[in-house]
Amino acid sequence: MKFCSLCATPVVQKIPEGDSRLRYVCPGCGEIHYQNPNIVAGTIPVYENKILLCKRAIEPRKGFWTLPAGFMENQETTTEAAVRETWEEALARVKLGTLYTLFNIPQIDQVHLFFLATIKDGQYGVGEESLETRLFSESEIPWDEISFPTVKKTLQYFIEDRSNQEFPLRVEDIVRDRKT
Amino acid sequence: MKFCSLCATPVVQKIPEGDSRLRYVCPGCGEIHYQNPNIVAGTIPVYENKILLCKRAIEPRKGFWTLPAGFMENQETTTEAAVRETWEEALARVKLGTLYTLFNIPQIDQVHLFFLATIKDGQYGVGEESLETRLFSESEIPWDEISFPTVKKTLQYFIEDRSNQEFPLRVEDIVRDRKT
Ligand SMILES: [Zn+2]
Ligand SMILES: [Zn+2]
Repeated sequence: MKFCSLCATPVVQKIPEGDSRLRYVCPGCGEIHYQNPNIVAGTIPVYENKILLCKRAIEPRKGFWTLPAGFMENQETTTEAAVRETWEEALARVKLGTLYTLFNIPQIDQVHLFFLATIKDGQYGVGEESLETRLFSESEIPWDEISFPTVKKTLQYFIEDRSNQEFPLRVEDIVRDRKT
Repeated sequence: MKFCSLCATPVVQKIPEGDSRLRYVCPGCGEIHYQNPNIVAGTIPVYENKILLCKRAIEPRKGFWTLPAGFMENQETTTEAAVRETWEEALARVKLGTLYTLFNIPQIDQVHLFFLATIKDGQYGVGEESLETRLFSESEIPWDEISFPTVKKTLQYFIEDRSNQEFPLRVEDIVRDRKT
C-alpha cells in the first residue's frame, strides 16, 4: 500500500494512538487502513465412498490436485463460500456436513476451512479453474500431486476418521517462517 | 474505495475477465482490489464456574458487556488472536480449549469465532478497551446489557452445554438484511 484509497494521499506507516501495531495511516484524511487475514473455504465432496478432486488450471500449483476451495467473498457465509467454490471448480452440487478442518497459516495471513460434503446427485464436471475433475477411491489418491498442505492434511484426516465414522473438528497451525 | 492504493489512479468498478463479481479495478496499473470478510476471535474465559465479561469502553456498544474478542491480525493464528484479545481487554491469561462457536454475519462481512478458555491463575484486570471487568455466575449475567448477538448466543449455548459438560462446535448464521 502506497496511497490512501479514499483520498490518494501517500500513506505513512505508524502506530496509531491506543494501538500497538504499525498500520498504514493517511496523513490527509486520517483513515487507518487495517489489513487482516483472509478465509479460504472448501469441501471434501464425497460420492459413493469416493472423493472428488480437481486438477488446478491456474497458478499457484497449476496441474496439481486440490479439494474445491477458494476465497470467501463479502456478503456470504463460510458455508455459502464452500458450496459456491465446489460448484465453480467442479460443477458439483453438495449437501454440506459439519466444519471438519480449520488451518491457521499465519505466514500468508490465511485461515482455511473445509466442510464435509456429499455430492447430491453424483453429477460433476470441469469448472473454469480446473483442467480435470475426478472421483478418487482411497487407493487412487495422487498423494505426490496434491496442491497444498491443508488439502493433503484434510484428506489424510478424513481417510483416518472415515474408518470409525467420527469426524471431530481439527484445528491446526501450518507454521513456516513468518515475516518479521 | 476511490483510488488505487498502489498508484493513486481513480479506480473503477468492473467484473474482471474470468470473474463473476464487481471488483475495484485500477485502470492505471491493472491491480484488482479484492475485499474479503474479516475474522473476529474471542474466548469464554472461565474461572471457578464463573464467566469473565468486559464492559466496553469504546463504540460500538459502549457500556455494554462483552466476551473478550476482536479482529484477528495478519501474521497470527485464530487461537493467538483469541488469547491476545483476552489479555488486551481483560488482562487475563487463558488456557484455550476447543473452538466452540462460529458465526457467519454476511451483512457486515464478518466471521466470529469463540474458543473455550480457562483463566490460568484467576487473575484479571481492566484493559484499555474496557471500563470494567467482572466474573459473573450464571444467575448474575446481565442479559439485557450484552453487546452483540454473537456474544449472547455464545453465552446461552455455553450455559446450556455446561450442564452436561459437552461442548460441540456450533456453526450459525446471523442474517439480517444484506446489502445488494
Ligand atoms: Zn486519505
Ligand atoms: Zn493502480
